[in-house]
Amino acid sequence: MTQRIRGVLSPVVTPFKADLSPDPQRFTAHCRWLLSQNCGLAVFGTNSEANSLAAEDRMSLLDGLAAAGLDTSRMMPGTGCCSITETVKLTSHAVKHGCAGVLMLPPFYYKGVSEEGLYRHFSEVVQRVGDSRLRIYLYHIPPVAVIGITTGLVERLLKAYPNAIAGMKDSSGDWNNTKVFLDAFAKSRFDVFVGSESFLLANMRSGGVGTISATANVNPAAIHKLYTEWQNADADEQQAKLNVTREAFGKKYLMIGALKQGIAIYADDPTWARVRPPLVELTAGQAQSLAAELKQIGFTMPGLKRAATVTA
Amino acid sequence: MTQRIRGVLSPVVTPFKADLSPDPQRFTAHCRWLLSQNCGLAVFGTNSEANSLAAEDRMSLLDGLAAAGLDTSRMMPGTGCCSITETVKLTSHAVKHGCAGVLMLPPFYYKGVSEEGLYRHFSEVVQRVGDSRLRIYLYHIPPVAVIGITTGLVERLLKAYPNAIAGMKDSSGDWNNTKVFLDAFAKSRFDVFVGSESFLLANMRSGGVGTISATANVNPAAIHKLYTEWQNADADEQQAKLNVTREAFGKKYLMIGALKQGIAIYADDPTWARVRPPLVELTAGQAQSLAAELKQIGFTMPGLKRAATVTA
Repeated sequence: MTQRIRGVLSPVVTPFKADLSPDPQRFTAHCRWLLSQNCGLAVFGTNSEANSLAAEDRMSLLDGLAAAGLDTSRMMPGTGCCSITETVKLTSHAVKHGCAGVLMLPPFYYKGVSEEGLYRHFSEVVQRVGDSRLRIYLYHIPPVAVIGITTGLVERLLKAYPNAIAGMKDSSGDWNNTKVFLDAFAKSRFDVFVGSESFLLANMRSGGVGTISATANVNPAAIHKLYTEWQNADADEQQAKLNVTREAFGKKYLMIGALKQGIAIYADDPTWARVRPPLVELTAGQAQSLAAELKQIGFTMPGLKRAATVTA
Repeated sequence: MTQRIRGVLSPVVTPFKADLSPDPQRFTAHCRWLLSQNCGLAVFGTNSEANSLAAEDRMSLLDGLAAAGLDTSRMMPGTGCCSITETVKLTSHAVKHGCAGVLMLPPFYYKGVSEEGLYRHFSEVVQRVGDSRLRIYLYHIPPVAVIGITTGLVERLLKAYPNAIAGMKDSSGDWNNTKVFLDAFAKSRFDVFVGSESFLLANMRSGGVGTISATANVNPAAIHKLYTEWQNADADEQQAKLNVTREAFGKKYLMIGALKQGIAIYADDPTWARVRPPLVELTAGQAQSLAAELKQIGFTMPGLKRAATVTA
C-alpha cells in the first residue's frame, strides 16, 4: 500500500482575471511556489472559492497543473458538491490524475439531514467512482457547510470502505471535536488533519497527521517547520509564532480576501486581490492596515515574487 | 409589457429511476397533470431536489418538457447555484425556452456574506444573461439556504434592474417578514409569492400575487380555488381546509418524502417514493400512517392516475 499524504497542505487560493474567470497561469505559479515550500495542494477548498467555480473550471485548472508537470501525488482536490453526479465526476477526474486523495464536503444544501442519508450519499459516491486508488478525506466545516461529519457516520463508512475512507479535515475550530475523532479513529488508519495550524501542535501530539490550513497559502514554510519539529523543545514557541501570523490575516478581515491581498502585496501583483462574488475584496483602508501589520510582525514570503516571474 | 406569472405554482418533485437518474417520462406526466389543475411549474426548486441534480440534468429535463409541448410561459425554473457561471448557464437556458421567470437562490455556500457581495452576485448574473426577457424571482429560504434576501438588497437590485427583478418567493415561514417585503415593494411591481399556501390568503389580502408551495404538488386545485376566490365569504374556511392537508404531509414527515409517497399512493406507482441521498424516503410504517391520515381527511388527487397513463 502506498504512503498516504501527510503534513501541511494549503487550500490554494484561486486567482481571477478581470472577467472573474480563473487565471491558470497565476494559479500554477502559486501552486509551484507552495510545493517548493513543502506544502501540499488542497486545491478547490473553501479558501479556494471552489464553490464559486463551475465543475468545468475546477477540472480545467487541475488539468493545467498536471500539464505543467506539478506532482499530483501532492494534491488533494476538493470534490464534494451537493449532487452525487457532480461529486462523482470531479472525484473520478482527480483519481485519474493520480491525486493523493480528495477532500469531500458533505452535500450541503439540505439541512437537518439524517446520518443514514449522508451515509447513502458517500456510499453511492465510493461505489460509482469504483476505483481502488480512491482516498476520501471527509470535510467537516460546520460554520460554513452547516451539515457536518459525525463519529457515527465515520464508523459506518470506515467499516464499509476501509480503503477509500482515509481521513478527515476538521475545520470546526473546536479542538475537543478533533480530539473525539482522533481518539475514536486514529488507530484505524483514519488520518486527521486540523483545519487551522493553530491546532497543529495539539494534533501532532494526539496522533493526527498534519494540517490543511488557509494560512498555509502565505506562511507554508514556518508551518511545515513545526510539522517536522513538533517534538523539539521549541515547539510551543513555534506554535505561538504561527498563531501571530494567522491572527494578522484572520482576526480582523475575511480570511480569503486577506490572504489574496497578502499575496498581492508580497508578489507585487494587485490582480491577486480579486475575489468572486458573493465575497468582496478588502477595502483600500483594510489593505493598508494589513500591509502595516504584516510589516510590523516581520512577515515575509520568500521566493514568491521570483516564482511568479519564472512561471510567467 | 407582457403579463407576469401569478397564482399557484408547484416546486415540482423530481421522480428518479432505480439508478437515481431523473425519470423524464414520469416528470413530464406530473407536470402535465399540474398544468391541468391550473398550477404553474416552479421546476427545480427545493422540493424538486434540484440541488441534488447536476446542471445538465436540469437542462435536459426542461428540454424534455418543452419538447413534449408543455407551456413554458407557465414555468419558473430554479436556477440559483453557488457559482455565477452555473447560475448564468441555467438562467440563460430558461430564458431561451421562454420561461415566465426563474426562481433564484442566493449563492448559499459561504455564510455571513455582505449585502454588497450578494448585490454583486445578482448584478453579475443579470448582466451576463443580458436578455430583456429575464424575470428573476429572488428565493428567500433561510431555513435551508441560510443566506437570505434582505430589503436592502432588493432595493438596490430593483433600482438597478427594474425589469429583470420581478419579485420573490418568501419561504421564511415568517408572515411578518413577508409583510415587510409587501409593504416595501409590492407597489414597485415586485411580486411576492409566499412559500407556503398556509399564508396564501394573508398574502392576497396584502397585495401579494400567489404562492409557490410544496403541497401544490398534491393539492393544486384546492389551492388554486382559494387563489381565485380569496375575496369570497368562505375564504377563511378554504384556507383552514388547505392547512389540514398541508399538515398531513408536512407535520410529521420530511415534506419531500411525504409528497412523493403521496403521489406513489394516489398514482398507484411505488417508483415515485424514491428520493436522492442525502434525503431518505419514508419508512414503510410512515408510508402507512400517511396513507391512513390522507384517507381520513378525504384527500384525493383527481385525474392523477389517468394523466400518468396517458403520457406513458
